[in-house]
Amino acid sequence: MIYAVIAAGGIGSRMGSELPKQYIKIGGKEIIRYTAEKFSAVKDIDKVIILCPEDWVSFTKELFSDEKITVIRGGKTRNETLMSAIDFIEATDGLDDDTALITHDAVRPFVTTEIIENNIDAVLKFGATGTAIPATDTIFEAYDGAVISSVPDRSRLYQAQTPQCFKALKLRELYESLSDEEKEILTDACKIYTIKGYDVHLVKGDVCNIKITYPHDLIVAEAILKS
Amino acid sequence: MIYAVIAAGGIGSRMGSELPKQYIKIGGKEIIRYTAEKFSAVKDIDKVIILCPEDWVSFTKELFSDEKITVIRGGKTRNETLMSAIDFIEATDGLDDDTALITHDAVRPFVTTEIIENNIDAVLKFGATGTAIPATDTIFEAYDGAVISSVPDRSRLYQAQTPQCFKALKLRELYESLSDEEKEILTDACKIYTIKGYDVHLVKGDVCNIKITYPHDLIVAEAILKS
Repeated sequence: MIYAVIAAGGIGSRMGSELPKQYIKIGGKEIIRYTAEKFSAVKDIDKVIILCPEDWVSFTKELFSDEKITVIRGGKTRNETLMSAIDFIEATDGLDDDTALITHDAVRPFVTTEIIENNIDAVLKFGATGTAIPATDTIFEAYDGAVISSVPDRSRLYQAQTPQCFKALKLRELYESLSDEEKEILTDACKIYTIKGYDVHLVKGDVCNIKITYPHDLIVAEAILKS
Repeated sequence: MIYAVIAAGGIGSRMGSELPKQYIKIGGKEIIRYTAEKFSAVKDIDKVIILCPEDWVSFTKELFSDEKITVIRGGKTRNETLMSAIDFIEATDGLDDDTALITHDAVRPFVTTEIIENNIDAVLKFGATGTAIPATDTIFEAYDGAVISSVPDRSRLYQAQTPQCFKALKLRELYESLSDEEKEILTDACKIYTIKGYDVHLVKGDVCNIKITYPHDLIVAEAILKS
């Protein structure tokens, strides 16, 4: 079974609005609906699980009539939210070694079917995936925030997007093997694999697969929608 | 003497237009005019040198009546363009150990006076500066472009912007000490310092100090202008 896990934990503070950004409308429709419907439409995906803040569960449920989509409460952090999704799947359908998750940011509504399918193909072959695009900006490394210690070769740097895919049991096993301190640090699930020495397969993203974070991102989003 | 060096070498191919992007109008005015006027208005800057493609020199000259602004032909690469600026300064005013350059992308019109002044203060104290903002995206490192080998700690990563500042004689000395192969690789002038073991002081940039590269950047630019 392949489950889409849509992380919708955002509280929208950076947007300067009360409304969490995943619920803001672009082109007259909530961002989270574009996102969830992209995954629901993919045949290989059995269920779409949306994880949002507890206060927004009932509101979110009312946005969807699609029986393939389930809305539950997320965790405090991105990784805790992934664990909540795995626990939910275990309680409802059970887990086996082939149970795979394709996780995505609710606020990346422009993910393409091709990116989703490439992630699914790659997780079945390789066990873990991360979507990314080649880094466009030069990246500086500054340990103390005052002096640039190095300028890493940009040709090997990629800007992470989502989806990311994982085998559910393996992800939980690796996550539970982390110390509490490591769990604090490892905000990106792919890093749980890399620090444990496991490969994560890189899937090519798209420059339009933007994360809607700042108010000006909404302007870009409307433009992408019209293009 | 402090010289602003505005790199306007872009040919605009990525914008899908014949017109190099620095000449595209936002709010009815060419992008390069916003940029050059920001630097010309700073008292500590003695001259503003714009370096553009040879075919665009006369066109660019006609955009400016400000006597503080000079337009000359740039080099084939960003670093060659910096060397052209240093040679021009040497031929016109001469160079000494205090001759400092503040270099900037013509297509970053939203640089602030504060960022410019902070760069000038820092180059006088520390000898070299780079402007950057904390990295917003998770960065993946993938040597072969297929497998994510590591996920560097984002807290020490910064997305480079401009301005960058250098002492003219030191920059030329370091650049000329590079092999032709190194010159090919070192597209970022700050890296010329870091690989030679010299510190580059980090100056805090701004999320609005965007580089106008893609068509959708123009939409963001118009929005920033109105904000």
